[in-house]
Amino acid sequence: MRFFSDNAAAACPEVMEALAKANHVDTAYDGDSWSEKLDGAFSDLFGKQVRALWVTTGTAANCLGLAALCPPHGAILCHEMAHIEVDEAGAPGFYTHGAKLTLLQGHGAKVTPETVEEACASIRDDVHQVQPAALSITNATEYGLSYQPAEVAALGEAAKRRGLGYHLDGARFANAAAFTGADPADLSWRAGVDVMSFGFVKNGGMNAEALIFFDPATAEIVPRLRKRAGHLLSKGRYLAAQLLAMLENNLWLTNARAANAAAAALADACGPERLLYPVEANELFVRMTAGEAGTLRSQGYDFYDWGPGEVRFVTSWDQNMDDVSLLATAIRAL
Amino acid sequence: MRFFSDNAAAACPEVMEALAKANHVDTAYDGDSWSEKLDGAFSDLFGKQVRALWVTTGTAANCLGLAALCPPHGAILCHEMAHIEVDEAGAPGFYTHGAKLTLLQGHGAKVTPETVEEACASIRDDVHQVQPAALSITNATEYGLSYQPAEVAALGEAAKRRGLGYHLDGARFANAAAFTGADPADLSWRAGVDVMSFGFVKNGGMNAEALIFFDPATAEIVPRLRKRAGHLLSKGRYLAAQLLAMLENNLWLTNARAANAAAAALADACGPERLLYPVEANELFVRMTAGEAGTLRSQGYDFYDWGPGEVRFVTSWDQNMDDVSLLATAIRAL
Amino acid sequence: MRFFSDNAAAACPEVMEALAKANHVDTAYDGDSWSEKLDGAFSDLFGKQVRALWVTTGTAANCLGLAALCPPHGAILCHEMAHIEVDEAGAPGFYTHGAKLTLLQGHGAKVTPETVEEACASIRDDVHQVQPAALSITNATEYGLSYQPAEVAALGEAAKRRGLGYHLDGARFANAAAFTGADPADLSWRAGVDVMSFGFVKNGGMNAEALIFFDPATAEIVPRLRKRAGHLLSKGRYLAAQLLAMLENNLWLTNARAANAAAAALADACGPERLLYPVEANELFVRMTAGEAGTLRSQGYDFYDWGPGEVRFVTSWDQNMDDVSLLATAIRAL
Amino acid sequence: MRFFSDNAAAACPEVMEALAKANHVDTAYDGDSWSEKLDGAFSDLFGKQVRALWVTTGTAANCLGLAALCPPHGAILCHEMAHIEVDEAGAPGFYTHGAKLTLLQGHGAKVTPETVEEACASIRDDVHQVQPAALSITNATEYGLSYQPAEVAALGEAAKRRGLGYHLDGARFANAAAFTGADPADLSWRAGVDVMSFGFVKNGGMNAEALIFFDPATAEIVPRLRKRAGHLLSKGRYLAAQLLAMLENNLWLTNARAANAAAAALADACGPERLLYPVEANELFVRMTAGEAGTLRSQGYDFYDWGPGEVRFVTSWDQNMDDVSLLATAIRAL
Repeated sequence: MRFFSDNAAAACPEVMEALAKANHVDTAYDGDSWSEKLDGAFSDLFGKQVRALWVTTGTAANCLGLAALCPPHGAILCHEMAHIEVDEAGAPGFYTHGAKLTLLQGHGAKVTPETVEEACASIRDDVHQVQPAALSITNATEYGLSYQPAEVAALGEAAKRRGLGYHLDGARFANAAAFTGADPADLSWRAGVDVMSFGFVKNGGMNAEALIFFDPATAEIVPRLRKRAGHLLSKGRYLAAQLLAMLENNLWLTNARAANAAAAALADACGPERLLYPVEANELFVRMTAGEAGTLRSQGYDFYDWGPGEVRFVTSWDQNMDDVSLLATAIRAL
Repeated sequence: MRFFSDNAAAACPEVMEALAKANHVDTAYDGDSWSEKLDGAFSDLFGKQVRALWVTTGTAANCLGLAALCPPHGAILCHEMAHIEVDEAGAPGFYTHGAKLTLLQGHGAKVTPETVEEACASIRDDVHQVQPAALSITNATEYGLSYQPAEVAALGEAAKRRGLGYHLDGARFANAAAFTGADPADLSWRAGVDVMSFGFVKNGGMNAEALIFFDPATAEIVPRLRKRAGHLLSKGRYLAAQLLAMLENNLWLTNARAANAAAAALADACGPERLLYPVEANELFVRMTAGEAGTLRSQGYDFYDWGPGEVRFVTSWDQNMDDVSLLATAIRAL
Repeated sequence: MRFFSDNAAAACPEVMEALAKANHVDTAYDGDSWSEKLDGAFSDLFGKQVRALWVTTGTAANCLGLAALCPPHGAILCHEMAHIEVDEAGAPGFYTHGAKLTLLQGHGAKVTPETVEEACASIRDDVHQVQPAALSITNATEYGLSYQPAEVAALGEAAKRRGLGYHLDGARFANAAAFTGADPADLSWRAGVDVMSFGFVKNGGMNAEALIFFDPATAEIVPRLRKRAGHLLSKGRYLAAQLLAMLENNLWLTNARAANAAAAALADACGPERLLYPVEANELFVRMTAGEAGTLRSQGYDFYDWGPGEVRFVTSWDQNMDDVSLLATAIRAL
Repeated sequence: MRFFSDNAAAACPEVMEALAKANHVDTAYDGDSWSEKLDGAFSDLFGKQVRALWVTTGTAANCLGLAALCPPHGAILCHEMAHIEVDEAGAPGFYTHGAKLTLLQGHGAKVTPETVEEACASIRDDVHQVQPAALSITNATEYGLSYQPAEVAALGEAAKRRGLGYHLDGARFANAAAFTGADPADLSWRAGVDVMSFGFVKNGGMNAEALIFFDPATAEIVPRLRKRAGHLLSKGRYLAAQLLAMLENNLWLTNARAANAAAAALADACGPERLLYPVEANELFVRMTAGEAGTLRSQGYDFYDWGPGEVRFVTSWDQNMDDVSLLATAIRAL
């Protein structure tokens, strides 16, 4: 029974069906009948005219977005535990041609307007220092916390005061939307977000992520950057079809709710003393001795160690709730 | 009836079945049970221990390969009509951090040892001039010609004499292998090729291409470059499964033969006077007046104009042979 | 007696005096009293408000200028013999983060509006092809030809029609201005030039070149790019002082006239049959057998071979006219 | 009376004389008779065969050195206050094509073997995380501390254990050598340093810095990188001459001793309570109220504020000792 990564889960049936339906002759690249519906479908979801591009990874989505916001000689403010800093192999440096990540601190990988302002204020406005050009946050965060709309908006104001572009890493945006119950617009453009990656792969997709620009002007060069990065697939319809299938009937939200519910059940079993952070999405960071972890593993549960005395559980859209109950019981029994 | 691009064709049934079979929980990224078989499967095909990586586009495959061969301050020799020069949006410059493409001429996008040597000889070996580091050829070429093994080998020797790495853009390698009947090894490593992209998408795949390194040492940093470029998919098994399905029973060769046969039938109909180049793969470049092209289009045939008085037909793995016969008849009737 | 490069000449006395005068405590970088006069001095020369930055090499001046005009995913049109293509070690690729040089042909390294238009027309406006963003010409050209104001302007119109930025490599701008007798404004901004490097080192300077922006908005990020490239010297006053000294009393023009006069005397001695190109600056490309070249060298003349049966002579601001006469006589005697 | 920057000082007489002596015709670039002596002169100084290149700025020297040690996908460990991180406008990102600076903490901008090891140990060895490739330290540090030979060597061992290249930013290496009295070899290659920038401009030079490679193999591509960055001056002899003049009779050490002595006199006046760091080079960071600073400024002393309640004094090779005595007295009188 695996609780180690939502990347390990299968693709959901609706996605597989969509691939089958898209399996016909069509125009190449993104000129096909599926890809052409993306802007409309995401515009409907966000209640605003947006530009939506498919890509195959969150790293590509994040970095194409950041490249649109930050020049090579600029800096991107982000949390020191941000995925773009910690787990993307330097991709932001590659896509921006060497822009700098200026790191912020904060509990649970959360950034605050104060840390943003403090970082900006500490940078002299001369040619010797790299000037900040963008702010990037992750929602849900790398430690499973969800920003509320008001928090996203407060950061948007902080960014605006300093003239920063505002990027949202939404690898688990669905989980944040499900947890907060907020309108996607309130977690994004109404809160000042300019660009976001919108994750589908961790949430039941196969290999399609969305890159959303809330101001089409910002997106203008991005199709060129995508091609230049080798991310313009020649049969794009198979990506578009996945995204459209997951937007339909809000499947993305349904899947995220399922993953969140599984996580919530485990959180309940852990209790506040074990939990390093509140569980506000589909990840749990849990205090657990090596012995306890060994006990669980001997019972067939797979999960990652997360430092000494800490483990991580991640739940997925298709998590078997019987497995969850068994694990919950096992945790309580430790 | 479409004859405009092999990128427009559907994915073949075996690929769709493989995706269904791979649709289960597995390790993320390329640690899964499918991805782990890639090195072995391609090593079997080439009769040599190789390193095989999946990527989603030919551009990514080409440019990751070139980045492994050429430093930022080096040059890559290629034909002036090479896909990497003409149709990859500057991706080689992006991936190599600014290396130069030094352009060679030759009929049908073919490079010869003489043009390679001449280009190298014209470069002064000082710090003012960019020194050549790699040679890149495309087989089958951008104009549908196939290099024979001896030609690939002669270029390999020319490259070796000058200390150049040797890259093969194999977007239509299958068609070249089918046309020449040559052992894949004789079209690649035995002829001195260091790195090749091996195309599957134009040949019945959905979105998986292979990047093959014949010397594992050359490949060493490439997994890092792939991740840094946002090309490490989190559910890599869906790519690996496609490649494995197409290697099984030499499906890649069967598909390419079908496409080539359709092209050959059309070539026969065109006759040597219409053909700009011999048809040695699945593309035809044909002299045709605008009036003639209009006639064909009015009969329901889709294809691209290719300059004044010229059109291009491309056939696919799943080209309906009845359509082909009809088009052949229609061409003869012009 | 050396005729091999104007880079080999000494610095002129006025430059040495200026260095001595600037040798005092002053503000660091470009905040000093000398650097602050640059904008004004060059604005006076060009009859227009310009932004003028010192740098130490023509390569840096050219490439900082090009980086301001061309994005990483764009192309710069230039002659196939342009210094930026042939002799700058790939620096344009470095500074622009991988932009492409699209090469034009033309006699004597001269570009025409027709070749510019033809090159632009051949590029499809889609994401697969790199779109042209800038035109770069060299005046005087790499083969010692000088563009007349009307030619520079015609190219400016061609650039404008295609929305291209317009860069002038003015390593020997002084020689072109001296030869044509044209107002510097007519060879630059009045002809549509946006950015130019203005060479002083080949013309009697020690190590200071000027980078001139005719639209200050284009220059806005360039001080940051200069610093990021390690070209912001901490004691900039020693560069500014050189430039100011050479602007005073039009010393730059006096020096260039001297070099041109020496070249003209040699051109006269060569006669039209030996000359590969008309001599319109301070360089001569001359048909000469290896035996003839050997004879001259045995008489103490230093110069470069320039291919089989061709040699190059370059004259300098301080060329001894007695030496020139002797060489002229020796050439006539061949 | 200025105490704000050693960049503000004049060039020393020996440098001016050397420029005058070098002011003759000679081979261009670095083929001249002066540049050719550099390797030998620095090899003599360091007691080892080294490769020595002139450049015009410390930023260029540092970043060319780092580019030789760290690939685009690697990381450079350095102090969070390192000049390469704080004051080079992102130049390391430019020269390395996007490598990452991983920041270490430590008193007075000093790095310890423990912080190096800790940083390396915290990086997972997988493709998701950027792997460390180099360590960079500054001696004397950005806060005027000097590493002793044993400290440099301990860091060298820490670097070696992790397979890191070892770079030394020696903008004020002369001051560190003067303070410690150590053999330059013991502060560099004998302690494991691979590459160093060796500063001359802050120490009486005009515009020449040295880039030293202790292993010629590491230097191999650097002349190409230097040219590609626009840092190969066409009249290099004027840089080489400066360096040679300052090596002669250990002028570099004499100048640094003078600057250090001035700083020591001021440090004595400040007393330990005012000093934020021990004064081990030519910089003082001093606790001083705004009122006190105002008093000094009203008496004619120029210096920088360095944060609330802190100021910085920097002394130079040519600091007038009478001025120093006056300032010392003025500080004591506060």
